[in-house]
Parts: sequence; structure tokens; C-alpha cells
Amino acid sequence: MSTRFRFTLGATDGRARTGTIHTPRGTIRTPAFMPVGTAATVKAMLPESVRATGADILLGNTYHLMLRPGAERIARLGGLHRFMNWDRPILTDSGGFQVMSLAALRKLTEDGVTFSSHIDGSKHMLSPETSMEIQRLLGSDIVMCFDECPALPATPDDVAKSMRLSMRWAQRSRDAFGDRPGHALFGIMQGGVTPELRQESASALTAIGFDGYAIGGLAVGEGQEAMFGVLDYAPGFLPADKPRYLMGVGKPDDIVGAVQRGIDMMDCVLPSRSGRTGQAWTRRGQVNVKNARHADDPRPLDEDCTCPACTGYSRAYLHHVFRAGEMISGMLLTWHNLHYFQELMAGLRGAITEGRLDDFVADFHASRAGGDIPPL
Amino acid sequence: MSTRFRFTLGATDGRARTGTIHTPRGTIRTPAFMPVGTAATVKAMLPESVRATGADILLGNTYHLMLRPGAERIARLGGLHRFMNWDRPILTDSGGFQVMSLAALRKLTEDGVTFSSHIDGSKHMLSPETSMEIQRLLGSDIVMCFDECPALPATPDDVAKSMRLSMRWAQRSRDAFGDRPGHALFGIMQGGVTPELRQESASALTAIGFDGYAIGGLAVGEGQEAMFGVLDYAPGFLPADKPRYLMGVGKPDDIVGAVQRGIDMMDCVLPSRSGRTGQAWTRRGQVNVKNARHADDPRPLDEDCTCPACTGYSRAYLHHVFRAGEMISGMLLTWHNLHYFQELMAGLRGAITEGRLDDFVADFHASRAGGDIPPL
Repeated sequence: MSTRFRFTLGATDGRARTGTIHTPRGTIRTPAFMPVGTAATVKAMLPESVRATGADILLGNTYHLMLRPGAERIARLGGLHRFMNWDRPILTDSGGFQVMSLAALRKLTEDGVTFSSHIDGSKHMLSPETSMEIQRLLGSDIVMCFDECPALPATPDDVAKSMRLSMRWAQRSRDAFGDRPGHALFGIMQGGVTPELRQESASALTAIGFDGYAIGGLAVGEGQEAMFGVLDYAPGFLPADKPRYLMGVGKPDDIVGAVQRGIDMMDCVLPSRSGRTGQAWTRRGQVNVKNARHADDPRPLDEDCTCPACTGYSRAYLHHVFRAGEMISGMLLTWHNLHYFQELMAGLRGAITEGRLDDFVADFHASRAGGDIPPL
Repeated sequence: MSTRFRFTLGATDGRARTGTIHTPRGTIRTPAFMPVGTAATVKAMLPESVRATGADILLGNTYHLMLRPGAERIARLGGLHRFMNWDRPILTDSGGFQVMSLAALRKLTEDGVTFSSHIDGSKHMLSPETSMEIQRLLGSDIVMCFDECPALPATPDDVAKSMRLSMRWAQRSRDAFGDRPGHALFGIMQGGVTPELRQESASALTAIGFDGYAIGGLAVGEGQEAMFGVLDYAPGFLPADKPRYLMGVGKPDDIVGAVQRGIDMMDCVLPSRSGRTGQAWTRRGQVNVKNARHADDPRPLDEDCTCPACTGYSRAYLHHVFRAGEMISGMLLTWHNLHYFQELMAGLRGAITEGRLDDFVADFHASRAGGDIPPL
């Protein structure tokens, strides 16, 4: 734990940029995509396989882990890295988003949120102080401030009130986090789709001072156009020398558009969730392996992909094991999807470094324009 | 495909023996345990991981594969090895056992069995001739004769009639198989627990002549004592220079007892099925990871085991992911169980080679006598 947490900027191309986040547990190449390991596992994957796809960092969910197996238990067992056998960086969310989307009997006050577990109905409390404590017990490398996400639709007034509560909670998170060398605390900008509120939130956060800044309250169903609208200006409100993290994004074209607009970090369950439901993401668009047209197709998902699913198996096999409900279906498709997402990130980083991001993005859209490849 | 199929005997220790089965797709060290890949996958495992446990050969199920995805389809796609990405030997059963245990609306005649698929109700027919054709389409290295398994309980007269039908089917299987260099056909001895019927069956099979001989009709609920009773004499009825395969066995102590009695090959779903239900097999007995006593246990399943589950994870983690319903639970426990079974086979082969099988078996039973290790 000798290295302190720091971010170094690399190349820029337009508003897009590359960089490196240095942590005691290793470096994170940005723009970075973080696979989600909700319950101390990236579903259907062994951690060495996640690493093999090119992932530098995972995301863990505070809400899920505090309920099962419990943060104190994980701390007694040596922390989340050891528990889940992943020795590289882990970012944990604050629990704020999940408590609003999953928990029952929520009660929100200035102090925090009381709620009942969706697993066993047990009563719990999350506040800036308890969220910081839980993330400390987990041993998270990048800790997120506890914030509040208003349910949509929300009026501008609701969004403003919620954002200001989150900013007071950001100060309490900062105070509770204290000084933990080698560990980082990120603030979360809120403010919906209103530039003035986004600016107010960014000013409040930068006045407090964080190691990185997330853009929250997007990827909650507002659509890509509205999200890109916010990303056209919001990253500019944040310090250029700190990482900018867009939470919960997204589809490949969301990722490309976000990177073009200056985003450094993203996370999403999409590649792993899609993999378990028979959906593959490829350079040439989506492939639904459950479709009968694949039943006799000897070709791989993507002829040019080097992942185990594409080098070892036909579409016919992937179709068969999905239909038969075999676990290898989710294992192979999740691996492929994570591989594709990481390859996309590597492509974006290379294009930015070489100053050819516009061409890369044009090729990205052109290769997908035809959609799925035609049947034999 | 230049190597012909042949079996070479190695060391002997009492009735136990080591050997090597040579096939064009690689050698099989005997005594061998064959993991079961029912639907063209060993459940919860990638084939390279199955190989890493030490498996030389897999078993595939004719009944399942003929129904889904279909033998003709697999043949069009290049055969079962290519389809499931396993280039080493595959033994396929004949479908006879599964058609009696899984299919609906069975009708048995001298010609064969007509039945309805348990998947979609479609009508099918299995006979010695169709079973040979399906196993040829799959590209099986070791093909099993089509036989009939009487439902238990059965009278000695029922068992005798069924055995004699199976012997007529064995001749038809031999005729239909023809001459296929590099591929082997095994006969299956029946006759229940009656020595005279077992002798009659063995004589009928050896008169026809096969590349190996299975002992069928055991591991169907008769209990270990009755099974060992048959194994005390039945292997002696078979040619010593051909492999002897005990179908559907078994638990580790079944395997040890069978090897002591001269068995060369076995298969069972137990290690993979147990792995998916939270049961681990170890040198020190069974461990049920779902038991609450493991929730805080930082120790691995087995301190001396080198499998990924034991080198990377605590019992507490395995307990957590089982409780949370995560796929990694079945993935890790299946890997551990297959590793343990293959390690047991390697231990048996080493002990036979060094003439210390009795000591090995005594240690095997002593280490398990204490049952599961005590909680912390």
C-alpha cells in the first residue's frame, strides 16, 4: 500500500482523453469499463477470466454486500478483494441507488434512509456515515459518496431539492471518510437535465474536493439523447485533472458517445446480464443466440474475436446450450460480451492516443449499421 | 486417425490393474473416471477446465443428444468433439438406459424401443441399428452396444429374459457397427445379481467379441454390498486383456472398491451434480457448503487440494455464493469435485503401480472416517 491514489492524463482528442489511475492495487487504464460484481462475483465468470478480458477494476455493490454476507463478515475474512479472489482495484457504489430501486419500506430523512432488506425483510439504515464505514470494511479502493437519486419522473424542484440534499451528504461523506492514503473518495454530481443545477452541484463538490467525480442521475431511463445532452456540458463543470465517472452506462454506443464527451470511467451490468439471456454484443451488432436461425450455423459469433466463445464454438453450439439451459451458455456469452466491451475500450484508448477518434467512431457505427450478420 | 484402438495392461495388485487405452484421439490412463457431458457439456465447466482436472475421456449421452440438438445436426457440424470443443476421446452410451428412465410412452419389442421425447413429446425409435448409427454420427470413439435394462424390482426370470434380449441386441449391434478402425465397440454384460446369468451373459459377449466389456445393470439402486458382491466374481468372467467398464459408478468408496475388484473404467454424474447442489467431496469426507457453520470459516474446502476452489476461496465465500444463487458456486464446486475424483484415480493408479493398494485403501477409509472437519 505504498502508492498513493493519483490520476495522470495522457492524450486528448477533442474532449476525449486517455489517462491512468494509479492505486496501490494496480493501475487503471482510462477510459475504463468496470464489470459489475454485485454479490462478490461477476456472474458466470471466474475472476481470472474477468482479468483475461482486460478489466483493470471491478465494481462491487454496497447495498447487496451489506445485506449478504454482511460488511463486518467480509472485513473479518480479510476484505472484499481476498473474499472474492480479485487483487486488483475495486470501486464500490454507496448503496444509495440500490436502496431506492430494490429495498422495501424506505424512509428518507435528512439523516439518511431506513429500509427493509429485499432478501429477508431485516431493517437497515444507510447514511453518509454508515455508507463510508461499510465501504471501509469492504476495503474498497474507490469509495463513492452516499447520495440520493430521485425517482423519475421528477419536477425540476424535486431534482433541485434532492441534489442539494446529496451535496450536504457529500460533505458528510467527505468528513466521515477522513484521510485514508491509497484509497479514493469520489463525489457524485446530480441535477438531472438542468444545466444550472448540474453547475451548482459541480461547484459544491469541487468546493469540498474529491479524488474523482461521478456524473449521477443519468442512465435511469431518460434516453440517450437526453444523456448526451447533459454530457455535452456537464463534464466541463468538473476539474480536468480528476477522473470523471459516468455511473451505470451502458450500451456500446452509449460508451462511445460518453468517451467522446470526456468521460473516463463507466460501469454496467449489461454485458453480463445480456450474456445470461442469450444476447451477444459484437462489432457487427447484437446476436440473439436463441434465434432458430443459428441452429445449424457453424460460424462463430464473430470471426475476428479472440475470446474463448468465438475461438472454440459455433453459433449452433451456443444456440444448443442456451436452449438446453446449460450453464456454459451464460459462461461463454458473458465472457464474450466482457471481452468485446474491453476490446472496445482498448480501441477507444488507442484511437484517442493516435488522434483518430472521429474515424474510429465512424467505423464503429458503420460496422454496426448492417445489424446482425445474415443467415447462411 | 492413424492409431488403432488397443488396450495395454500395466501393473497389477491383487485383482486391481493399471493400463492404457490407446485411441487416435489420445490415451486413457486406467483405472479411469469419465466425467459426464450429457448435453454436449460437462455442466458448469469449460472443456479445458475438465481437461485440467486430469480427465482423459468424457461420456456423452446418446438419448439426450439424439433429441437435442440431433445426431444428424451434430454430424453436419463436424461431430461431437468439434461441436463441444473437446478433442480427446469420447465414450457414448447407447441410449438404452436413459430411454427406460426418462422417456415417456415406451414400447419395447424384439426390434427395439419406441418412445416419446421428454423434451417435446416427439416420437422416436431406438434399436441396435439406430443406436449404432446415432453413435457413428456423433463420432464417438467408444461406442456402447444397445441393451435393455429391466426396471427394478425384477424377478430372476425377468432378469434372464431381459439379459438374453440384450445379448441378441449385442450381436445386432456388432453387425451394425461393422469395421471402423480407430473406433471401439463395447459389449454390456447383464444378468442382475445371479452369477449363472452373469456367466451366461459374459460367454455370449465374448463369443461375439468386443473391444471392451461393460458391467451393466448395477448402480441402479441395489446398494454397495450387492454391487460389490457381483464385482467379486463378474470381472473374472471377462477377458483379462480388454478394458472392463462399470457403468454409472459412483461415490468415491464405490470407485475404490470397484478398482480393487478389477474395474478399469467408470462414469458418474455425481461430482458435477453434487457441485451444483453445494456438496463437495474431499479426502476428509463430504462438505455441505450451504451449512451455516461455514458462514465465517476462512479455511478452504481442503487445505491440501490444488484446485481453483481450494486455492482461491474460503468456505465462507463458497457458502455465500451458494446462498446467493450465484453461478460461480456450481462452477467452483464442480471443478473441485472433478479434481478430487481425478486425483483419487491418479492415487489408485500410483498405488497399484507401486504394489501398495491395500495401504492406499486403508488410508482412504481412515481419512474419511472422521467425516467432515470440525468447525472453528
